[in-house]
Formats: sequence, structure tokens, C-alpha cells
Amino acid sequence: MTSLPKGFRATGVAAGLKPSGAVDLGLLVSEMQATAAGVFTTNRVAAAPVQLSRRHLRRGVARAVVVNSGNANAATGSRGLADARAMAKTAGSALGLRERDVLVASTGIIGVYMPIAKVLTGIGAAAGSVSAGGLDHFATAIMTTDTRMKVAEASAGNARLVGVAKGAGMIAPEMATMLCFIATDAEVDRGVLYDSLHRATSASFNLIDVDGCRSTNDCIFVLANGAAGPVDGEAFEAALVEVCRSLARQVVEDAEGATKVVAITVRSASNVKEARKAAAAIASSLLLRCALAGADPNWGRVLAALGVSNIPFDPAVVDVWLGGEKVCERGAPGPGDVQKAGAAMGEREIEIIAELNRGGAEATVLTNDITAEYIRLNTEYTT
Amino acid sequence: MTSLPKGFRATGVAAGLKPSGAVDLGLLVSEMQATAAGVFTTNRVAAAPVQLSRRHLRRGVARAVVVNSGNANAATGSRGLADARAMAKTAGSALGLRERDVLVASTGIIGVYMPIAKVLTGIGAAAGSVSAGGLDHFATAIMTTDTRMKVAEASAGNARLVGVAKGAGMIAPEMATMLCFIATDAEVDRGVLYDSLHRATSASFNLIDVDGCRSTNDCIFVLANGAAGPVDGEAFEAALVEVCRSLARQVVEDAEGATKVVAITVRSASNVKEARKAAAAIASSLLLRCALAGADPNWGRVLAALGVSNIPFDPAVVDVWLGGEKVCERGAPGPGDVQKAGAAMGEREIEIIAELNRGGAEATVLTNDITAEYIRLNTEYTT
Repeated sequence: MTSLPKGFRATGVAAGLKPSGAVDLGLLVSEMQATAAGVFTTNRVAAAPVQLSRRHLRRGVARAVVVNSGNANAATGSRGLADARAMAKTAGSALGLRERDVLVASTGIIGVYMPIAKVLTGIGAAAGSVSAGGLDHFATAIMTTDTRMKVAEASAGNARLVGVAKGAGMIAPEMATMLCFIATDAEVDRGVLYDSLHRATSASFNLIDVDGCRSTNDCIFVLANGAAGPVDGEAFEAALVEVCRSLARQVVEDAEGATKVVAITVRSASNVKEARKAAAAIASSLLLRCALAGADPNWGRVLAALGVSNIPFDPAVVDVWLGGEKVCERGAPGPGDVQKAGAAMGEREIEIIAELNRGGAEATVLTNDITAEYIRLNTEYTT
Repeated sequence: MTSLPKGFRATGVAAGLKPSGAVDLGLLVSEMQATAAGVFTTNRVAAAPVQLSRRHLRRGVARAVVVNSGNANAATGSRGLADARAMAKTAGSALGLRERDVLVASTGIIGVYMPIAKVLTGIGAAAGSVSAGGLDHFATAIMTTDTRMKVAEASAGNARLVGVAKGAGMIAPEMATMLCFIATDAEVDRGVLYDSLHRATSASFNLIDVDGCRSTNDCIFVLANGAAGPVDGEAFEAALVEVCRSLARQVVEDAEGATKVVAITVRSASNVKEARKAAAAIASSLLLRCALAGADPNWGRVLAALGVSNIPFDPAVVDVWLGGEKVCERGAPGPGDVQKAGAAMGEREIEIIAELNRGGAEATVLTNDITAEYIRLNTEYTT
């Protein structure tokens, strides 16, 4: 439904990477050179497309993104790197561009070589089918265990920003995210684009935690082709943050097997970094997230998770609210109604607040419950 | 079946903490003053009994340990501390000892006040029932979600060492463990006992990972009453390591919902610390542990977990063996038979080896698979 910004075309085709025959190869193209920036995974084992795109982005410009699902092209050595280059080169040839104008991204199983002949054939087909109305096909092509496509848009002056993402598994703070592509017709200076993207990532994808794992393939690309003319830098960044936050939230909402969205807020920390670290520590507790699945108001697990966050807080002054009930006061059982807290945890949206009583900073991390369905999905992923 | 070392008596009684009516309060007593040492959780939120026992152990001696399951007495503030003191005092009175001669440990739900009247009555009953043959009752009293009691023994010269542990959930490296109590009739110098216990812990409980969480209540106590006379320090430490390793392994074997024991070895690391850190990073990957449950030879998850270990290894030279098959060579698919690796992962015991090709150090961390049953147990724990 969402249309692309001016000067962009996109598509998604079935290249045969997914055994189901679903759409698995996407192409996003700008009619003119675009300023481009990226954020990549911090995982030391970076997939071939990550290595290649990082190199291509050094120039700060790009014309197209080719992406596939079904195979991550990670842990595939020099052959994997050659495959990623072949994807860029083939897309470039088909579109009249150079290899270095094309960014590449992949998602799927790690440690298996790409069925490259199928992929290159698919790229040829995709190049012939890009259209201004092709966003949904592109957004569908990047899905793996996602149950729905993730699209968000915002505007800044005359310009529009449209982003798509895939997520569902392996999302955690301190990483880029799974895959996210943002197209905008704003005219943005290269430095502004880079800085805005990094700040927007910190305020969105780095504040969600799905399963504590950072993938080998995570990346976020933004292409700004200037077709709508210049925009105010602050307005642009605000719109970028809006798109990234919406997509990050959609990723959490569609997390593998999850039934709930949980906002974990840490208040009165010494500084924002500490608040984020504390909230992330709570979010990453497997035991707490089991309790969330069971609507169990076991706030002790919040304190226990905080206790291993390496933050020098005083447990004797911590307060905890679960679903609006102050279940813990000064590190001991509080006046809140634990039954009501348990009832609130049965809702689709849950709020947990930990008050450290140390300073004036706060942060919120979004996460989800972990269910037996998550385990099932990840137990059966390749076999 | 295992008898206690000379001069020790023990028991377990039902104090009514567990709704099931099962045995939930244990007492271990030495007939004479014992040299004593402890290792405690590194969780900043330390339970009341941990705070109290840490203080009591400063003198390096103890005569008794009182322990309950069903309630952790953690996040219970000053009332919790008073309850822990009352446990030590009541046990001391009943046994003719001072409060400071008694160590206290608790395990169970966090953030709920102890039903202290029941506990103190139980302590009175326990004090009247300690016997030289009471080890099994004591070992049973500390169980929570454990499916069986955990006992190990070893000898050093004329002395015997007998240990019991509870575990199952919340066990991870860099912690003391859940609960572990070791009694020995060896005569050991206080400093030797302390150092030996810390080294034995590093070589056992700190090399297992069940769910990445460190509890508020973990502790290991060793009491050496000297009834069997002096022993060689090296022989004693070797026996202590043997007991701790056996108990650590039993904890992993009985991990909540687990069906497999997985030995993760990192070889050719720069030093032992790095090897342990790398092995622990692999062991803590939720995605890998789902793959282990499903016997899925998805070795990419081993590499992806290594990639977030913060160790500056080169992914392009890493080799990985799964069940004896070299599935990854120099960071890419290896010559090993992935089908065979998958078959090996169907066994009860699985071996994963990652060769970093950086140096000469190695370490092994024991872990287990994560199953839907683990989620179920921890979803339904309190409600």
C-alpha cells in the first residue's frame, strides 16, 4: 500500500532460495545517484554481503540494494565473498550500474554456500520488474520467520522516508538490527545522513532485545536520492528516528513465538548509558522472559537480572513497578497488589519500571516474552 | 547411601515451606569446630542468608549449616536479614552453639518473606533428628526443580570429602553455583581451604552454563573438621576438585528440561581466560542451544556466538567440529559429514570443538540444550 519516495523503484521475486517457492529476492533502485549510509552488525563473524557493502559504502553513495532471504552467505569464506560480488555485479549490469553502486544484503541460514546460479537468474528477473509500486514485494522478499512485512513512513518537509525491515529472531541491543532499508527523496548531506542514521539506530534498534543474539548479517541502509530537494537536518533526523522506532517496534511485536510486547524502563540511573545497560540486562534475562510468558508477577527476577548488570546500584533502594503496581519498594516486597500485577501481565502490552534512585537518567528497552513456540521455531529451523 | 565423613551428622525434615509437603529444611552439623570457607554469588542483589553467611565466614570457622528450599529469602530487606539471623540463632540454640557458628543458605522464590515460624519449628525438629546416616535426607531437602539429589565423594589420604549440591536452573559461569555443601574430616589450614575452594570452583562450577542467569542465593560451603587428621594439601585440593566437578556435571545433567549434556571446548586460544570466555560465549547462545535440542547441525550458530565474545580472533581461520565431524574449516563449510554431525547431536552427550588457531590454551564449558520443557517449568514456577 505504501508507495516509494520519488525516484525509487522496487520489486521482489521468487528466485528459488526458499523451498516454499515464496518471494525471496528483492531489489531497490534509485533513478539517480543517492547519498547512502549504513550501520552494520558488531558480530566479529561478518557475512560476505556485510563485508562487501561496508566497502561499497565508503564512498557514501549508492544506486541500488539487492537482498535475498533463505541464505545468509555467512561463514562461506572467499567463495561467499565472490558470490556477494557476483550479486552486485549482476544487478549492476542489469540496471546499467557499476558493481560498487550496488549494496548487498542476505539473511537466512549460516554456513551454506549460496545457490548462486539461481540467485543471479533471479536478479535478472527482478531488474526487469522493478516499479514505483513494488515496495510490498520488496518487503515480502526479505522475510524469514517474520509473520508479516514491516513497513514504516514519515515525512520531513516535502520529502518522504519509507523504510522496511525484517526481524523476528536474533535481535538484541548493541547491534544494527536484522535487515532494514530506508529510502528517502530528501536531499541530505553525506555527513548528516551518517550521523542521523547512527543516532536513530541508537534510539531504536539498539533499544530492543528479542533473544540476546547478534547476527552475522545485520545491517541498516539508508539511501537519500534528493528528488524532493533539500530538507532541514533536524526535521530529517526526527523523521528517520520515527521510521526506525516504528520498525523496531514492529520487529519486537512480530518476534518469533512471542505473545507480548514488554517495555522495560529504568529510571533515576546515573546517566543514559547506565540506564540503557540496566534495562538491557533486565530484558536479556531468560528467566524473567519465561515469567512474562506465564503472566507470573515474579519481580524477584527483575532484581536478580539487575544484580548482574555490573552497575554499582544499591539493591536496598530499588523500587519496581509491574503493570502499574509497586511490587518492590526499597529492595523488599512493596505495597502494590501482586494479583493485579499478575493480571496486567496477562495483557498483550506489559510495562516494567525499575527505579534505581541514583540519578536523573532513564531509558526504555522493548522486549518480548519467550515461549515454547520460540524454542520450537529455532529447534526446527534448518532440519 | 553415601555416609558422611567422621564427626558429621545431618538431616532433612519437612518444615512446610513446600506446598507439596516434601522435605525442605536441612541441617549439617560437625561435632567439633571446623575450618570453613565459602564462595558466594557475584549477583549484586545478594539474598539475606548470603549476606549473613559471608559475615559468619570471616572467622574461617563454622559448626553447622542450616538450609531451606521453597523460599530464597532474597529481596526481603531488613526483615529478611532478621529472619536469616533467627535461623542461625535457633539452630545454634538447639545444638548448643552460638549464632555465628551457623551458616545459613536458602533457595526458592525471590521477593517473598520467609514463613519464619514454620522454619524455626522445622529447625527445632531437625536438630533433634541429625544422624551420621542423614546425608540423603539433607541432600533431598535442598532440591527445588531438581529431579534427583546430587552427591559426590572423594578421598585424600585418610580423609574423606562428601559434597551435595542442588542446581537445575540459573547456573552460569562466573558464579558460585546454586547451592553446594562439602563436608570433610580432613584437617586443613584455613588459607589452604579457602584457596583450594576458589580454585576448585573455577575448575568446576564456573565452567558450566545452564541458563545464563546468576542467582541471588548461590553459595558453596566447605567445612573441614579435622577428625581424620592432617592431609597433604595437593591431595586435598585434587579431591576437592573431583567432588566439585562431579557435582557440577550432575547439575548440568539434571538441568531444567534439558535432554542433553554438551561439552564445548575452545582450543588454541591465546590463554586460558580467553578460551573460557569463548567457550562460555558459545554455551550462552540461546539459538545454538535450541539447535542442540533439535539435533540440528547448524554450526553457523557456533561461529555467530563466537563472534560476539569480544575476543579478537580471525573468523577466517576458525575450525569447528560437531560430534567429531569437521563441519567448518577456516571459517567456511568444512569436509566433515553434516549428516553424521546431525546424527551425533541426537545422542545424550554432544561434543563441540572450536579451534581458534591463535595460541596454545584450551578450556571446556559444560552446558545443555534448551527445550520447550525448560520454558514451561520457568513459566509456571510461582503461579
